[in-house]
Amino acid sequence: MKIKKSLITLADPNQRNLPLQTLLDQEGKKRTALELVIKEAVSAGTEEVGLVICPGTQDVYSKAAGVYADRIHFIVQELPTGYAQAILSAKAFIGNEPFLHLVGDHLCVSQNEIGCALQIVNVAEAKGVSVAGVQATRESQLSSFGAIGGRLSGRTTGLYEVERVLEKPSPTEAELKILVPGLRAGFYLCFFGIHALQPSIFSVLEETTRLEGPQERSLSTALDQLCKHEKLLALEVDGSRYDVGADYGLLFAQLALSFAGKDRDRVLSSLVEMLAQK
Amino acid sequence: MKIKKSLITLADPNQRNLPLQTLLDQEGKKRTALELVIKEAVSAGTEEVGLVICPGTQDVYSKAAGVYADRIHFIVQELPTGYAQAILSAKAFIGNEPFLHLVGDHLCVSQNEIGCALQIVNVAEAKGVSVAGVQATRESQLSSFGAIGGRLSGRTTGLYEVERVLEKPSPTEAELKILVPGLRAGFYLCFFGIHALQPSIFSVLEETTRLEGPQERSLSTALDQLCKHEKLLALEVDGSRYDVGADYGLLFAQLALSFAGKDRDRVLSSLVEMLAQK
Repeated sequence: MKIKKSLITLADPNQRNLPLQTLLDQEGKKRTALELVIKEAVSAGTEEVGLVICPGTQDVYSKAAGVYADRIHFIVQELPTGYAQAILSAKAFIGNEPFLHLVGDHLCVSQNEIGCALQIVNVAEAKGVSVAGVQATRESQLSSFGAIGGRLSGRTTGLYEVERVLEKPSPTEAELKILVPGLRAGFYLCFFGIHALQPSIFSVLEETTRLEGPQERSLSTALDQLCKHEKLLALEVDGSRYDVGADYGLLFAQLALSFAGKDRDRVLSSLVEMLAQK
Repeated sequence: MKIKKSLITLADPNQRNLPLQTLLDQEGKKRTALELVIKEAVSAGTEEVGLVICPGTQDVYSKAAGVYADRIHFIVQELPTGYAQAILSAKAFIGNEPFLHLVGDHLCVSQNEIGCALQIVNVAEAKGVSVAGVQATRESQLSSFGAIGGRLSGRTTGLYEVERVLEKPSPTEAELKILVPGLRAGFYLCFFGIHALQPSIFSVLEETTRLEGPQERSLSTALDQLCKHEKLLALEVDGSRYDVGADYGLLFAQLALSFAGKDRDRVLSSLVEMLAQK
């Protein structure tokens, strides 16, 4: 079934200004961080985009959506109760269809001509199951991400059947529960920040969000439940994601965009000149 | 006379989001672009900061001022009529004192332990005249800046007596009128974005802003008048300025801040890793 709707979660009140940060995309065009996330969704075939926001941000985000302003729908999350609740609050907007979920504080740059979100959508549409984008990530960064354990799905390189999902596991817990054979030592498969989800996720979320505690507020807990009842795949995306809410995240996202784009030579030569001045 | 007040001009309605962009300073602390400009002023001895803003931005800029929120005063410029008018609108706030003027879309990084603004203030307080910060700038960038012509002031390296000021001159006009002996071929002394101004600038601005035309809206035209009647110095600042409103300006400002700060090694090593991945 074709994926026509996307959901972007932006409701962290500590990161109100993040969607307004401006970067230059691969074509050298000035874009807000929000526009870049929406652009990723739209280039994966999305027709309508739901933005889960915190109260009082609708006007500024409408402007920040730039050329995409006419295809966005706002869903206000009154309290910052986490990703799980944020996605659940969009149930009426999504309806009974598969959809794409992108986290609003991650930007990504594909390593090939197919966008990161589209790589995930292609697998989800072909297999008809939920697919989590993942990236091999150093153990030292486990504290920032949800992570999966599983085994290769058939002979497809980089495609896994998920058996466990843990939210920000400790290195010890990760080594015990989600070590994935074949990955470089000290690396785990952590979320990329983009998921293609079947609508069955909503009934799982209704269960998990009833429980108390920070773990239960995460999408990871719901996906850990989901993979016990139905197939959940994880795709190693051929690209990189940048957490722009983290220190220097915007800097490295901008560098990655420009290294992959038309201004590569200009940026590289200015960079060398800067380093030579020291 | 000690300089105790600063004026930051932020009233360009096309750049409303610029002061909200976030960067990490030399200490690795998250700061808005606005905070960084105010920090530069405060570290040069400023006690009170006037912000010339466009209508409707006071609330967001109050928040963006961060730790400096209690020492700022807003001056609303109703129409985007240029720098000259923006400075003139702050006459009542400044009073009959010398003051520091910083443009809100430039960030700077000093090459030594004395901040860029403080280098300019030190000369202005010692000599009791207006001092424009300048930077040797490639001919190809003349279209972005005001530029000065003049001759070395005594034996002090990098200090000039200004004889002409032109706003965004053409290369031909610059070669004819403001070629400064001793500079590298193809370079001109362009504004750094920070001036220490005597209050006599206000009567000049009252004259020049009466004239019509885009040139007359610039501070350059007023300074060109000023240097005919009283001494105006230009100091080559030991540091670099970054126009964060320009393409990749934020990127290079962030790189410069991190190369000059505590996270230099971390940023450099991530950068090399990124380049090696390609």
